[in-house]
Amino acid sequence: MPPAHPFDDDKLREECGVYGVIGLTDAANFVALGLHALQHRGQEAGGIVSHDARTGFHSAHRFGYVRDNFTKASLMETLPGTLAIGHVRYSTAGSKGQTAIRDVQPFFGEFSMGGAAIAHNGNITNAEALRRELIDRGSIFQSSSDSECIIHLMARSLQKTIPERMKDALRRVEGAFSVVAMTRTKLIGVRDPLGVRPLVLGRFGEGWVLSSETCALDIIGAELVREIEPGEMVQISPEKGVESFRPFEPRPSRFCIFEQVYFSRPDSILGGRSVYETRHQIGVELAREAPVEADLVCPVPDSGTPAAIGYAHESGIPFGMGIIRNQYVGRTFIEPTEQIRNMGVRLKLNVNRALIEGKRIVLVDDSVVRGTTSRKIKEMILDAGAKEVHFRIASPPTAWPCFYGVDTPEREKLLASHMNEDEMRDYLGVDSLRFISLDGLYRAVGEARGRNAACPQYCDACFSGDYPVAPSDMIDKGFQTKAAE
Amino acid sequence: MPPAHPFDDDKLREECGVYGVIGLTDAANFVALGLHALQHRGQEAGGIVSHDARTGFHSAHRFGYVRDNFTKASLMETLPGTLAIGHVRYSTAGSKGQTAIRDVQPFFGEFSMGGAAIAHNGNITNAEALRRELIDRGSIFQSSSDSECIIHLMARSLQKTIPERMKDALRRVEGAFSVVAMTRTKLIGVRDPLGVRPLVLGRFGEGWVLSSETCALDIIGAELVREIEPGEMVQISPEKGVESFRPFEPRPSRFCIFEQVYFSRPDSILGGRSVYETRHQIGVELAREAPVEADLVCPVPDSGTPAAIGYAHESGIPFGMGIIRNQYVGRTFIEPTEQIRNMGVRLKLNVNRALIEGKRIVLVDDSVVRGTTSRKIKEMILDAGAKEVHFRIASPPTAWPCFYGVDTPEREKLLASHMNEDEMRDYLGVDSLRFISLDGLYRAVGEARGRNAACPQYCDACFSGDYPVAPSDMIDKGFQTKAAE
Amino acid sequence: MPPAHPFDDDKLREECGVYGVIGLTDAANFVALGLHALQHRGQEAGGIVSHDARTGFHSAHRFGYVRDNFTKASLMETLPGTLAIGHVRYSTAGSKGQTAIRDVQPFFGEFSMGGAAIAHNGNITNAEALRRELIDRGSIFQSSSDSECIIHLMARSLQKTIPERMKDALRRVEGAFSVVAMTRTKLIGVRDPLGVRPLVLGRFGEGWVLSSETCALDIIGAELVREIEPGEMVQISPEKGVESFRPFEPRPSRFCIFEQVYFSRPDSILGGRSVYETRHQIGVELAREAPVEADLVCPVPDSGTPAAIGYAHESGIPFGMGIIRNQYVGRTFIEPTEQIRNMGVRLKLNVNRALIEGKRIVLVDDSVVRGTTSRKIKEMILDAGAKEVHFRIASPPTAWPCFYGVDTPEREKLLASHMNEDEMRDYLGVDSLRFISLDGLYRAVGEARGRNAACPQYCDACFSGDYPVAPSDMIDKGFQTKAAE
Amino acid sequence: MPPAHPFDDDKLREECGVYGVIGLTDAANFVALGLHALQHRGQEAGGIVSHDARTGFHSAHRFGYVRDNFTKASLMETLPGTLAIGHVRYSTAGSKGQTAIRDVQPFFGEFSMGGAAIAHNGNITNAEALRRELIDRGSIFQSSSDSECIIHLMARSLQKTIPERMKDALRRVEGAFSVVAMTRTKLIGVRDPLGVRPLVLGRFGEGWVLSSETCALDIIGAELVREIEPGEMVQISPEKGVESFRPFEPRPSRFCIFEQVYFSRPDSILGGRSVYETRHQIGVELAREAPVEADLVCPVPDSGTPAAIGYAHESGIPFGMGIIRNQYVGRTFIEPTEQIRNMGVRLKLNVNRALIEGKRIVLVDDSVVRGTTSRKIKEMILDAGAKEVHFRIASPPTAWPCFYGVDTPEREKLLASHMNEDEMRDYLGVDSLRFISLDGLYRAVGEARGRNAACPQYCDACFSGDYPVAPSDMIDKGFQTKAAE
Repeated sequence: MPPAHPFDDDKLREECGVYGVIGLTDAANFVALGLHALQHRGQEAGGIVSHDARTGFHSAHRFGYVRDNFTKASLMETLPGTLAIGHVRYSTAGSKGQTAIRDVQPFFGEFSMGGAAIAHNGNITNAEALRRELIDRGSIFQSSSDSECIIHLMARSLQKTIPERMKDALRRVEGAFSVVAMTRTKLIGVRDPLGVRPLVLGRFGEGWVLSSETCALDIIGAELVREIEPGEMVQISPEKGVESFRPFEPRPSRFCIFEQVYFSRPDSILGGRSVYETRHQIGVELAREAPVEADLVCPVPDSGTPAAIGYAHESGIPFGMGIIRNQYVGRTFIEPTEQIRNMGVRLKLNVNRALIEGKRIVLVDDSVVRGTTSRKIKEMILDAGAKEVHFRIASPPTAWPCFYGVDTPEREKLLASHMNEDEMRDYLGVDSLRFISLDGLYRAVGEARGRNAACPQYCDACFSGDYPVAPSDMIDKGFQTKAAE
Repeated sequence: MPPAHPFDDDKLREECGVYGVIGLTDAANFVALGLHALQHRGQEAGGIVSHDARTGFHSAHRFGYVRDNFTKASLMETLPGTLAIGHVRYSTAGSKGQTAIRDVQPFFGEFSMGGAAIAHNGNITNAEALRRELIDRGSIFQSSSDSECIIHLMARSLQKTIPERMKDALRRVEGAFSVVAMTRTKLIGVRDPLGVRPLVLGRFGEGWVLSSETCALDIIGAELVREIEPGEMVQISPEKGVESFRPFEPRPSRFCIFEQVYFSRPDSILGGRSVYETRHQIGVELAREAPVEADLVCPVPDSGTPAAIGYAHESGIPFGMGIIRNQYVGRTFIEPTEQIRNMGVRLKLNVNRALIEGKRIVLVDDSVVRGTTSRKIKEMILDAGAKEVHFRIASPPTAWPCFYGVDTPEREKLLASHMNEDEMRDYLGVDSLRFISLDGLYRAVGEARGRNAACPQYCDACFSGDYPVAPSDMIDKGFQTKAAE
Repeated sequence: MPPAHPFDDDKLREECGVYGVIGLTDAANFVALGLHALQHRGQEAGGIVSHDARTGFHSAHRFGYVRDNFTKASLMETLPGTLAIGHVRYSTAGSKGQTAIRDVQPFFGEFSMGGAAIAHNGNITNAEALRRELIDRGSIFQSSSDSECIIHLMARSLQKTIPERMKDALRRVEGAFSVVAMTRTKLIGVRDPLGVRPLVLGRFGEGWVLSSETCALDIIGAELVREIEPGEMVQISPEKGVESFRPFEPRPSRFCIFEQVYFSRPDSILGGRSVYETRHQIGVELAREAPVEADLVCPVPDSGTPAAIGYAHESGIPFGMGIIRNQYVGRTFIEPTEQIRNMGVRLKLNVNRALIEGKRIVLVDDSVVRGTTSRKIKEMILDAGAKEVHFRIASPPTAWPCFYGVDTPEREKLLASHMNEDEMRDYLGVDSLRFISLDGLYRAVGEARGRNAACPQYCDACFSGDYPVAPSDMIDKGFQTKAAE
Repeated sequence: MPPAHPFDDDKLREECGVYGVIGLTDAANFVALGLHALQHRGQEAGGIVSHDARTGFHSAHRFGYVRDNFTKASLMETLPGTLAIGHVRYSTAGSKGQTAIRDVQPFFGEFSMGGAAIAHNGNITNAEALRRELIDRGSIFQSSSDSECIIHLMARSLQKTIPERMKDALRRVEGAFSVVAMTRTKLIGVRDPLGVRPLVLGRFGEGWVLSSETCALDIIGAELVREIEPGEMVQISPEKGVESFRPFEPRPSRFCIFEQVYFSRPDSILGGRSVYETRHQIGVELAREAPVEADLVCPVPDSGTPAAIGYAHESGIPFGMGIIRNQYVGRTFIEPTEQIRNMGVRLKLNVNRALIEGKRIVLVDDSVVRGTTSRKIKEMILDAGAKEVHFRIASPPTAWPCFYGVDTPEREKLLASHMNEDEMRDYLGVDSLRFISLDGLYRAVGEARGRNAACPQYCDACFSGDYPVAPSDMIDKGFQTKAAE
C-alpha cells in the first residue's frame, strides 16, 4: 500500500526528490538517508542505482517509504559502490496501472560507450510530442514517465560521451527539470534554464553530493557548497572535482515560489535563506495585510505552523495549538458503514476543544486548493464552540494548474479558478477569509519591491496563470492559457 | 517490523490503551477507530474481540499499527456484533520471544456460564505470586502477561455470574489497572481503588463507550459522560444502561501525574481540564520558577510544544520551531558503516539553523530519562551556532521506576537517580538546566497549594519514590523502595 | 493459503503426524525433516517445540507446508536444543475461525515442576465431556483442539513428575491416540491401548527418534528399532535410554486398517511389512476376487498405483499410466466464469488419450468416499474413447465415519452408506464396479484366515461400523452406531 | 522463493512454455490454465499480457508458480479482454541479478501503429551480436533476455503492419524459436524454419488457441487442430480465422528429439503420437538393445516411469515402484549442519526397501547429465540391500550443450563429454550401465530405419554434436563445435 502525506488530500503535491553521491564508500547508504530526508517530496516509491567499479551497475526500485525499503541490509548490500543516485516520487495519474514499478526512477540505459542512469524532478512539457517522434523512429519505451524521453534522446545522440549526449538530449526538452544522473565514473547535475526546481551541491569528506534540498545534506552532515545555477550542468568526479558547463541559452531565472510556501521543508535553505524564516515572514506580511480582532492564532498543522507563529508575533494575538494531529495517520482507514463514513478528517486531526471554546480563532493554513479540507476544519472548529473563525492563507489563491512537476487538480476543480475571495469565504462558511497578496508574498520571500510584473522573479503560474514555458503537450490537448482566455 | 514512537528512545512508555463499545452496529469498527486515537499509548500490537448474538465471540490480534491491520474490510468482517473491546500495547521485556502474539490482549476465556474477554491498562504488582499459586493449582497460562492472572482467577471463582467473578478476581489483585471487559451481553469497566490509570465513559447514539482517553471519544464523535471513578466497576447493557458497583475498600485516589505531563494526548480531557492547557500551564510555572535571559523558546517536538508555548508566553521571549522533526520516521534505519553510525537523532530531528544561529535558546522538553537524547539535541543546537542552551524540563527529575504499567529503565539508568540538577547540567553540557519543582507541577495541574505531602493527590512515584501500592513482586526480587534505603 | 493434498477432494484425510527427537544437536532440524516426510498426514499447519538446556523452551507454529516454513535459517535458529517434538495437521471443522493458529500443536503448558509440550495423532472420543468438566473446575482452554484436554488433565494431576501426570491424564482419556511429548529432559511416547494410530522408535547415532511412520526415519537416515506397542508408554533420555511402562489395562490391539490402504506412505513399514507390498497384494487379491476381461490396468495416481501394479501382475493384463497427474497442483485455481467452472479435476489429472482410446480399462483406485471424483474420472476416461471402464477399489465400501483421528464426511454423504455395489456402479455409470471384500483385505494385510469376526485384528470401523471404542461425544450428539440401528 | 522442478538438479531444463488465446471472453483465464498445464516447461516465473478493446493492453509478470499468482481474482480482473498471451520460464544464468522481473516475458512494445506483445520459447543464437548492433543505433534494452531483440527489430522495421514487421525481425534472427505474439486484434504464432520447438493450434468454441503442447489444450477442453509447421507463421483473428504465411526459406525440419525423451509431458501428442507411447517404446527398444537378467524393473520417478514400464513389458521382468518420491518437495530445504548436509536426494526420494532388498534391480532413468543424482540414487538402492544395480538410460549419452532454449551445463560438466559408457559405469559404481543408441531412439520415435545421418530427421545436437544452426554468439566466445574439434 503506497502511503501518502497525511494531509495531502487537498494539497498540491511535489512529484519528486533527487539525490546523488560520488566519492563515498557505500554511496547508496548515503543516498538512502538523503531520500529519507526528501520523503516529503514523494512518498509513493523510490529507487536507487549504484555503480561499483568491479561489479558494474546495480539498482533497486520499490513502492513505499524509504525507511521501509532502503533500510534492510539485505537490500542495501545489493547496491555497492562509491557512486549512486536516487529518486523519490509521487504517483501521477498517467502511471496508474499495469507496469507502475517501471515508472519508478532512476532510469537506466546501456549505450554503446557504457551505461548511464538518470533521475529527474520536474516535468517535460513537450514529452508527448518527443515520445511520438521517438516511437516513430523505433525506440521502445519501458514506462509512461516523461523522464524516459531524456534517456532515449541520449541513446540516439551521435555524441561520443555521455555528458555530451545529455546536453544534446536536454536541448530538445522543454519544461522544468532538475536532473541527477550518473555514468560509471561521473555524477552529473543539471537545472533547466529557468531553474524552476531546486538542486544544491554539498560536500562530505572526500565526497560530493547533489540534492533537491539542503535538509538532505544536513541528515548526513554534509556541508552546503552552493546551489546549482539555472541552466548549469555540473559533472563531478573524484579526480577533477566539479566541472561546470552552460549547455543552454541564458534566460532570467524563475524559481518556483510554491517551494517557498509549501513544498520545501522548513529547515531547508533556499536562496541563502531559511524556508522557516520565509514562512514566518509570510505570516508577518499576512498579519499586516489582513489583520483581525481575535483571541487565538492556530495553525493548521503542520505546514501552517511557521506562518501562524509569524502572524501571532506580528499581531500580538496569542499562539496556540488548537488543532492536534494524530501522528499515526496512514493513507486509508475503515469507513465501512454510512454511520461513520464522514469522519474523514477526524482520523488525522482533532480539535483541542478546551482551547477553542468561546474564542475568536485565526486559522492559518498554507493554501486552499479544492477547499474540501478547509470546510471540514471549519466545521470542527465551530463544533468545538469557537465564536468566530477567520481563515488566513499563506499564499495567494491557487487558480491555475502547474505543469512543471506538481500534481494539481484540473483547473475547474481549483476553488479559486471560479470564485473570488468573498465567494470562497461564503463557500467555506467562515467569518472572514484572506489570502496573502502576490506582492505580499514576493515581499515575504525577500523581494522588497514585490513582484516585477514585466519580468517576474519567480514562477508563480499557479497563482498568476503566467506560464514561463508554454505547456505544449497540454495546449495540444486543448488547455487554455490565460493569454488565450 | 513493529514500529515505535518516533521519539521514544529516551522516553517513558505507556504500555496500553483500552477501548470498549456496546450497543452499536459493527462495534468493532468503532473500537478500531478508538484504538487508532489511542495508538500513542501502545504501538507494538493491538487486538479486538467482538461478540455477535448469532455467531458468538470473534477475535483478531495483530502486531503493528491499528491503521495497518484493523482497516482491512477482510479482517473487520470477521469481527461482527454490537459489542466489542480492544487493546493497544507496547512490548515489555518479558514478552520478547517465542509466543509473543499470545501476549496481545484482549484475553478470552470460556467459563461454565459462558465466555468473557478482558483487556487491561496498568500493571499487577503481585502477578508473579498469583501466577505461581495458580500454576500450582493446575491453571495453564497462555501468555507471559500479568493480565492473564485476572482471567484465571475469574475461572476459578465460585461466583455464579461473570461480573461477580470479576469482583472476586480483582480483589486478589494488587497494583494499578483500568480494565475493559465483556461478556456475551455486557460491557464492563473497572478502575483500581487508587484510580492510577484513566478510564472514561462516553455516549454515542444508543451506544456506550469506554476509553482510556477522551480523544478516542472525539474520533467517533461520542460525548464524554464522565470518568469512571477510582474503585468503581460499571456494568453496561443496552437494556439497563450503566450500573455502578464499588467492589473495593474506598481509598483516596492517586491518579498518575505523568499522564498529565506526557502520556495522554494534549487534546484529551483529564479531570475536567484539557491536557494541552495543563501543559501550557506547566510552561508558565516553569517560566516563573526558572526564568532565564534568552532570545528564543524552542520546544523539543512534539511533546514539549505546549509547555514551550506557555514558557514563551509567560516569559515574553519569542517562540519558534528551532527543531524540525521528520514526519516519516520509523523504528529502524540503516547504520551500516562506522562513518554514519552516529547520526541517530538526525534521522528524526533537524535543526532549523537559520533560526538558532547566534541566539540564546531555551529548549523545553517534557522529561529527561536517561539523558541520551538530550545530549544529542544539545549538540545539534550548538553545532547550529546557538550562543547559549538552556534546558527547561516540564517535569521533576525522573528518579524512580514506575511499576504501574509504564516501561521504565532500571533505576540506575535513570539520570536523576544518581545525579542532582547541577550534575545533570554538567553531564548534558548545557548552560543551564532546570526541572519544574514537584510543587510547581502540582500547581500547574490545578492543585493551588501544591503537593499534599501527608496525602499526595497524585501518584508521583517516578519523581518522589513514594509508591502508593507496594510493588511486591519487585520487592521479592530485591528492589529497594525509598523507605528501605 | 493453506495448501492441501492434491487429490483429497474425495479422500479420507489423516489429521496428524507426530515426530520427536532427543540427544541430537539442533534436534529441531531433524524434526523439520521428519515432519517433511510426514507431510502427507497433515498439510494445513505444523509446529515444533524445542528445549535448550540454557535458554529453555522455544516454539514455532505456522500454517502451510513444512518446506515453506521450517527451512528458513532465521526460524530454525529460534529453535535450539537437543530435544524437540513436532506435529503436522489437517484442519478439522471445529477449528475453522478466529484463533486457528492456537489450535496448532504441539501444546505447551507450565506445571509446578516445569514445562511440558505434547503433540498427538488421533482423536479423543470423550474430549467434549472432559472439556466441560475441566472448564467447570476453572481451566481455561486456548484452543478448540481435543488434544488440549490432555495437558489440562496433566496440570491438575497431583502426581509429582510429568510422566506420572501424563499417565494420570491418559487414563481419563478415551479414543485413539499416539502421543509424542517432552519435558526439559525427556522424550515421551505413548500409544493408546488399542494401538489405533502408528508410532515407531528409531535410533540415529547417539539420539533417539519417535515418528508416526518409518519413512520419516529413513529421511534422516535413522534406523528402525521397533514399533511402540499398543498401550505402551516410553520415556527416553540420553542417560537412561528407553524405559517402557504399561499405564493401561491390556487389551487386544486394533490397528487402523486404513493406514494400510491409504494413509501411510508406501515406503513405510507397518507391522514389519512394506506398505507398498501390502497394497500390491491388495491388488493381487482384488484381481482374484474380481477379475475382468480388459486391455489395460490403470491406476488413479498416485495412491492407486501399487494396487494397480498388483492387479496387472496377477491378471496378466498390461499396466499403463492412463491418467497423468499435474505435479504443480495446489489447493485452488481460478474458476471465474461459468464457461470454465466445471473443469475441476482436469487441473490435477489429464487422460493419456492415445493409451486409452478404444481399450477396455480397469481403473484401480484406493477408495470411494463420496464418489464425486470417481464420476469425473470415469467421464474423462470415456471422453478419451475408452470402450469399457471397470472400477476396482482397493478397499471395502466406506460406509461409516471414523472418530479416531480421520476427517470423514457425515455418514449420509458416504456413498456406501446408502447404496450397495450395484447401485454405486449405476451411480458412477461404469461397466463394472468391485470393492475388495473385508476378508480379502485382511488376507492382503497378512491375516491368512481373513477377519476374525469375534475379535477383529484391526480397527475397520469405517467399513464395518464396528467401533472398538464407543464414540461417546458423538453418541451424546445423537450419532447412531450400527448396534443401535 | 522461485520454486523448481523437484528433480531437476541433474536434468536438462526446458526454458519456456508459451500460450495464446483469441476470441474467448476473459482470455487471460484460459491462458492461466494453459500455463498451469505447461508449468513443467518453466517454473521460475510467468507473465500474461491481455488486450481489451475498451481499455487497451494489460499485463502482469510474477515470480513463482502459475497456481500461486494467476489464480487470484484480484489479479485476473486486471487482465480483461478476449485476446491474451502468456509465458512460463526458467531462470538462466544471465538473468540473475538486479532486474530479473524485467526479464519475464511476454515483452511489450509500443510502435507507431500500435502496441504488440511477444513471448518466445527457444533461443536466438545471434542475440548478442544483434543487441550490440541495436544499442549502437540507439535502442534501449529493458532486459537481459535474448527475446527482446525481436521486439526492437520490429520497432525499427519500416514495414507498415505488425505482422510484416515481425517477419522482418524474424528474418534477422538465427536459432530456435516458437513465438506467440499479439497485436490489438490478432494472435500470431511462428515456428523457426527447423521447427526445433513445438507449437500447436487448438480450437475451443469460437476461439483459437496456440500452445507449446497439447496437454495445455486438454486442460481447457480445446481440440487439437494441427501443429504449426516449421517455418510457418499464422495470424489469427475471429473475423478471418487462421491465415498462414511462409516468411522463411524452406528447410528440412529438425524437431528437438529431447522433447520426446524428457521435456514434453507424457500426455501430450507430438507428431500425431502420444509422448507416453513413445517413451514406452523407448523402454521396449532399450530392453532389446540392452537386456539383463534381473528381478525387478524400477523407474526413477516420475520421468523414467513410461520407459520402465516398456522395459518391463518387453523383458518380462516385473515392474515395481522401488523408489518413492515425496510429493511435497520444493526447491530448498534446511541443511544447516555438517551432520545432515548430505541427505539431499532423500528429501525428494526414498527407497522402498522391502521391495528392493536382495533383488537385482534394473533402474530406468530418462537421461544422465552430470551424473550426480545417479550416484546418489545408486547408493540409496545399494544401502537398501539390492544385490545388483543395472542402469538403463532412455536416451543416448548427453555429450553436448544445447543452444536452442535448454539450460545445459557447460560441456565439460556433462559426464558423457569426457567418459565413455564403461567409464561412466565405473564412475557411477553400478553393475551395468547402458544408454539407448541414437538409432534405437530414432526407431522408438517412429523412424523405422533409424537416424538418417545425411539429413537427420531431428535435432539431436545434445547427443551428436551436430548443430543444425551454428551457435554464432557462442562461437564468438570460443565454443568449439564438433566439426572444429
